[in-house]
Amino acid sequence: MREFNFGGGQPDPKSFPWSGLAAAAQSVLAREGEELVKYPGGGYEPLREVASARFEKREGVSLGAENVSITCGSMQSIELVTRAFIEPGDIVVCEELTYGGSLGVFRRLGAELVGIAMDEDGMRMDALTDALEDLVASGNKPKMIYTIPSNQNPTGTVLPLERRKMLVELAKRYEIPVLEDDCYGDLNFTDQPYPPTLYALDDSGLVVFVGSFSKIMGPGLRLGYFAVKTSASEMRGKIQANRMDGGTSGLASMIVGEFAKEHLWEHIAVVNHVFSEKLRTLDESLEEHLGDCCTWKNPPGGMFLWVKLPEETDLERFRVLTGEAGLSFAMGNGFHYAGDQIPYFRLAFGYPPLDDIRDGVAALAECVRAALPVAVGV
Amino acid sequence: MREFNFGGGQPDPKSFPWSGLAAAAQSVLAREGEELVKYPGGGYEPLREVASARFEKREGVSLGAENVSITCGSMQSIELVTRAFIEPGDIVVCEELTYGGSLGVFRRLGAELVGIAMDEDGMRMDALTDALEDLVASGNKPKMIYTIPSNQNPTGTVLPLERRKMLVELAKRYEIPVLEDDCYGDLNFTDQPYPPTLYALDDSGLVVFVGSFSKIMGPGLRLGYFAVKTSASEMRGKIQANRMDGGTSGLASMIVGEFAKEHLWEHIAVVNHVFSEKLRTLDESLEEHLGDCCTWKNPPGGMFLWVKLPEETDLERFRVLTGEAGLSFAMGNGFHYAGDQIPYFRLAFGYPPLDDIRDGVAALAECVRAALPVAVGV
Repeated sequence: MREFNFGGGQPDPKSFPWSGLAAAAQSVLAREGEELVKYPGGGYEPLREVASARFEKREGVSLGAENVSITCGSMQSIELVTRAFIEPGDIVVCEELTYGGSLGVFRRLGAELVGIAMDEDGMRMDALTDALEDLVASGNKPKMIYTIPSNQNPTGTVLPLERRKMLVELAKRYEIPVLEDDCYGDLNFTDQPYPPTLYALDDSGLVVFVGSFSKIMGPGLRLGYFAVKTSASEMRGKIQANRMDGGTSGLASMIVGEFAKEHLWEHIAVVNHVFSEKLRTLDESLEEHLGDCCTWKNPPGGMFLWVKLPEETDLERFRVLTGEAGLSFAMGNGFHYAGDQIPYFRLAFGYPPLDDIRDGVAALAECVRAALPVAVGV
Repeated sequence: MREFNFGGGQPDPKSFPWSGLAAAAQSVLAREGEELVKYPGGGYEPLREVASARFEKREGVSLGAENVSITCGSMQSIELVTRAFIEPGDIVVCEELTYGGSLGVFRRLGAELVGIAMDEDGMRMDALTDALEDLVASGNKPKMIYTIPSNQNPTGTVLPLERRKMLVELAKRYEIPVLEDDCYGDLNFTDQPYPPTLYALDDSGLVVFVGSFSKIMGPGLRLGYFAVKTSASEMRGKIQANRMDGGTSGLASMIVGEFAKEHLWEHIAVVNHVFSEKLRTLDESLEEHLGDCCTWKNPPGGMFLWVKLPEETDLERFRVLTGEAGLSFAMGNGFHYAGDQIPYFRLAFGYPPLDDIRDGVAALAECVRAALPVAVGV
């Protein structure tokens, strides 16, 4: 059976830079491969420099290679940071809809989750202000705020500058560490830069920045990183103390570092071109097949489209039918902080080729209609 | 200042197979590099097959690729297995002298350590029998036994067959999981195979086997693995449930898998040749400079030599003097389950070139003599 993969956050295989990586492997292994008989420690320095320069090109300030720790994807960063701040029963505040992988880490480490209402610009600061005030007043001060300000997963929102400033201000007021997940921040299809990161806006050292090479290259590399400000060295130590794996692959780091120091932005431009074309195709296909009953808003970047089903959809039937039709994608409840069933689903558009997007949406539309009450479905 | 590195468990840089890995990168990335846009899951299958075949060649039975999980070095295996079995306050039984990295993981995860007496054949089974009996009788049943049966770190001992059988038997009797650390098992300089692994001897599913590519290639790869028996699927689930990092680098796994499926044993032969030559040089140098006051026993393989200082050595003075002389190596207390100061040190002989071994031992000998009471030192 033909399969349509709108599931995970995977980039486009055809534009994966395998030949660039092979060339990088040849040159870097010849030059310094012998170094791989050593442990990688906090991370291969040239890759930490790439991470620092990547941030600087977009944000105007450098991360500082010495402030960057390379991890096994951004997931390990999220795990290590959460272990540093959260004991079982502690509260993590996050967008009411957010990345299921992070929710899974928070739950496994025993966090209580408090979801903050969102609108089309992302997390609402009035809601965050009220929630923090109430929680602190009741003696339940949150131990961490987790947020994806740019190309939010799953909603695709980009938090405006004023909200970012407010979020940083609130974190300072209550002294709550912020885990800023910027995995998707370079996937910007517009000609306007996104507002500065929280990390760039922050002068308190409370913001931990998390980045990744998974979304611009591939999660199979398992290369991500976190950065904390020079001034927050105690926090850095606390996060690193949870690390027991001997460090992140020097082999993978060398090869990606060698490739990225020359070709990072050229490759990001390719990825953005490919992704924006896929998004356009996805939008057109949805308009054609589901424009009368589903709603969505095209994000300015990222790799996800968040689609609202008619309220009356039989979600379980929809799930079963789409599975039978070879469609993989993520149902809305996996992104809800409390796991609520909600009439939404997420389509990841980075991986499937254009034909799969067109035909997949047609197949999806049949499932949507078949999961509606008869009067509406006709 | 000239430095002499006898510190970590690092292989020889000159025989690091960088060109083989570069060639492997070229061919495997051309063939299946696109797969790196996906998450690696439980590990890149061809590398799990290499791990399985590696075991089979030595042990006569296969691990079964489906029973192998690839991890970030063997360290992550040790962390995940320990998290699965140990709650704070639980007892881990281990050799009284063992790998400091593992001791660090056990301590960080809150384990109480019980060290078992050793002799020149490794862990003593009479001591283990008594300890388990006493602990169980007093309601303190250990939750895990950790052991390095072959080329034990730091002592270099190889546990004889009868003791291995007994250890497996005791684990079964009390139903205690065994973490068998076989990181060094292929570093055998003799023409006789070592006795079978505990994993091969076990029919209960209680033994978790841990292997690594760090010692035969380089820890910078960060590639290790654990295996549990097909029958122990519940245990496998319990161990994997602690994993939150999205899997081990597919890029590193692909390259090493591609190289190892053709060249593993040829490379292991090179490593064993180089290591045994270094051990011989180390032994000769020690004999020449310290034969009158230190004692050691050459191991049949591995990468460590465990040296006993005169009882009357001023250990703190020895530590300071050797540091000043540019010598790095590990003091004995780092391997003691209770951190006791003991008049031993460990020389890792895989990394330093022969000249450094000769000159380093000469420098070391001066430090030993300077750290002895005057009457003895003269």
